[in-house]
Amino acid sequence: MITELANLTAMEVDALTDIDGGLNLTDGHARLPLSAEQAAIVARIPAMFTEASRRAFPDIEREAHAAFLRAVGQHTAPIGTGRILSCYSSTLATDIVARALPTGTTIAVLHPTFDNIADLFTTRGLSLTPLSEAQLLEQDWPGPPVGAIVVTHPNNPTGLVTPEGHLRSLAEHAARHGQTVVIDASFRGQVLAAQYDTYAVLETAGADWIVIEDTGKLWPTHELKIGLLAYSARTGLPIDRAFSESLLAASPVVLQLITALAQDWENGGRVRAAAAVERNRAAVREAVEGAGLHLADPDSQISVARVELPADGPDSSLLYKDLVTRGVHVLPCAPFHWADPESGQRFIRLSLARPSEVVRTGARKLAESYRRLSAQPVVPTG
Amino acid sequence: MITELANLTAMEVDALTDIDGGLNLTDGHARLPLSAEQAAIVARIPAMFTEASRRAFPDIEREAHAAFLRAVGQHTAPIGTGRILSCYSSTLATDIVARALPTGTTIAVLHPTFDNIADLFTTRGLSLTPLSEAQLLEQDWPGPPVGAIVVTHPNNPTGLVTPEGHLRSLAEHAARHGQTVVIDASFRGQVLAAQYDTYAVLETAGADWIVIEDTGKLWPTHELKIGLLAYSARTGLPIDRAFSESLLAASPVVLQLITALAQDWENGGRVRAAAAVERNRAAVREAVEGAGLHLADPDSQISVARVELPADGPDSSLLYKDLVTRGVHVLPCAPFHWADPESGQRFIRLSLARPSEVVRTGARKLAESYRRLSAQPVVPTG
Repeated sequence: MITELANLTAMEVDALTDIDGGLNLTDGHARLPLSAEQAAIVARIPAMFTEASRRAFPDIEREAHAAFLRAVGQHTAPIGTGRILSCYSSTLATDIVARALPTGTTIAVLHPTFDNIADLFTTRGLSLTPLSEAQLLEQDWPGPPVGAIVVTHPNNPTGLVTPEGHLRSLAEHAARHGQTVVIDASFRGQVLAAQYDTYAVLETAGADWIVIEDTGKLWPTHELKIGLLAYSARTGLPIDRAFSESLLAASPVVLQLITALAQDWENGGRVRAAAAVERNRAAVREAVEGAGLHLADPDSQISVARVELPADGPDSSLLYKDLVTRGVHVLPCAPFHWADPESGQRFIRLSLARPSEVVRTGARKLAESYRRLSAQPVVPTG
Repeated sequence: MITELANLTAMEVDALTDIDGGLNLTDGHARLPLSAEQAAIVARIPAMFTEASRRAFPDIEREAHAAFLRAVGQHTAPIGTGRILSCYSSTLATDIVARALPTGTTIAVLHPTFDNIADLFTTRGLSLTPLSEAQLLEQDWPGPPVGAIVVTHPNNPTGLVTPEGHLRSLAEHAARHGQTVVIDASFRGQVLAAQYDTYAVLETAGADWIVIEDTGKLWPTHELKIGLLAYSARTGLPIDRAFSESLLAASPVVLQLITALAQDWENGGRVRAAAAVERNRAAVREAVEGAGLHLADPDSQISVARVELPADGPDSSLLYKDLVTRGVHVLPCAPFHWADPESGQRFIRLSLARPSEVVRTGARKLAESYRRLSAQPVVPTG
């Protein structure tokens, strides 16, 4: 039995603030070394400061929206309409959506998914019901009283991409039933298959939609990032009001940084980053296969990987604790299964957007721990 | 009658996104030109990127806390204890406090003060009662059922500093009654009189306390800033949990920037910035006195100034609208008076942390508008 779970971010904070150092393979933030092209962009930040004083903020912001959305294939996003808000992070964007939805609304949220998404909605007084990945793949959409359907695309931690036809079906269903479609596309930039024009699909279906985009998973910019919150002209939700309660504006320096990094992303940056992530995924696969384990989502292209643990061996809680004592931080997956933590007990998530030697060492230590724990009698956890 | 008010941040967003340009004297963020010393620090940001990959995050964060809190006189703040959280902004820090307080708690909040503070608490389901500046000065503290007392120190927009003896009285009162003292010290860095060691006073009194500090009002860093959320060892509120729901960590690049700017602040930076603000305050005084108006808070040292309008002339709503049509953005003060907007109708707030010519022109146009509107019959607004 899982009685009390720390949330995933709290475990990520523990890893980040581990004063003994240790290997941090928890959060999905990019912590790869800067490429030469990225380093050249970072070198221009002081000039971006000067530019931020010289140019009007709306110009700088519109340029960043255009560059970023173009780099991730979103050609019909509502650039320049005032319906794309720049937030400090995708988490803050999600909280603004949660605040704008009427308290007490029942919403369907993809399951499993990053627990923070479910937590933010719950904390704002919404009532959550899970939408499983199987239901999504079967296009089995919930009807009323569900007022909004929240899909992480690609999903975190599984990497599942909602296919274009499935999104169209969801959008048409939502339009028929007066539901709002909320897409969290924070990991989209890493996956070409997720870069079909979501806005065109949603808009053509006549849906009321909200889309969250994130620059924070793509570039190792040490939390200098933006979460974008875009919404359809149809929505009557008080999103602007919730936004103005949270912040005045994103940084025009960060917006300029994003413009430049997005241009580089189209110009080879994406291919370079994807190659590094796939090298690291292969290293994890190899290391864990040596211990008889395998990747749960071998075709995932996002910068995290789940390792599946057999039902007859130590579970993820045991493995997590053992690894922490050895200075390796990973995430046990129970909290991703926010509606049914037990169903996540057999998965461990590792971040891949890290220097290769960090990933390689972490995966090797995971395999060692698993082997050692498997050789011992299994003690139930809880 | 004031029927529907936009919040102040929404007016600030309008000013920032005015596509015709215009003069923005709304928000209290520093938009002064960089000093030579600050420009030299900004030039080192690319090196701070490299350093952020090399050094452990807790070291970088602790150094920033120490440098900043020392620069604003807070020598007994709990540095290195884990009880100072770095947030993206003071607004987010306030929201985390609002979330951690039990829903339904009655809290006393200083009145007037920036409306966002009251809004964030209200949105999280707390019940607000005003604490007037007169009550604060008379040390007339509310007893139970008030569970927390929230004081902005120095206050925004009035600049009122809570004297040390008054804070001690409040802290002792709160300790006796089991209340939490919440101090929003976002503007503290600008005012020496507010830089007595707040943490020592609160701790000695045995109070349960929370203090919010902000780097965002001090330096023209284009929203690269941190809101600090510090709390006493006595508090049982789930602040860490609320924090981990909001963010993983602040940027180690921004933290290094703050370390350097805080060192410069002690080393002449504060004096230089204060001189610029006081020059601008004098310019506003001079311009409005020509129209028979005066500053409401002539002794304020924070980077905003209120202009008081006589009862028999045009009020701030009229003046605000007239100025917007002339491309000048200021803030009418009714929303600061969150419990009684009528009482703020006779005040207009201007930001002083702007280039001198911007403040001078804005103040001159305000005086012109006032003269022109005074010459016309007064039409009631609402």
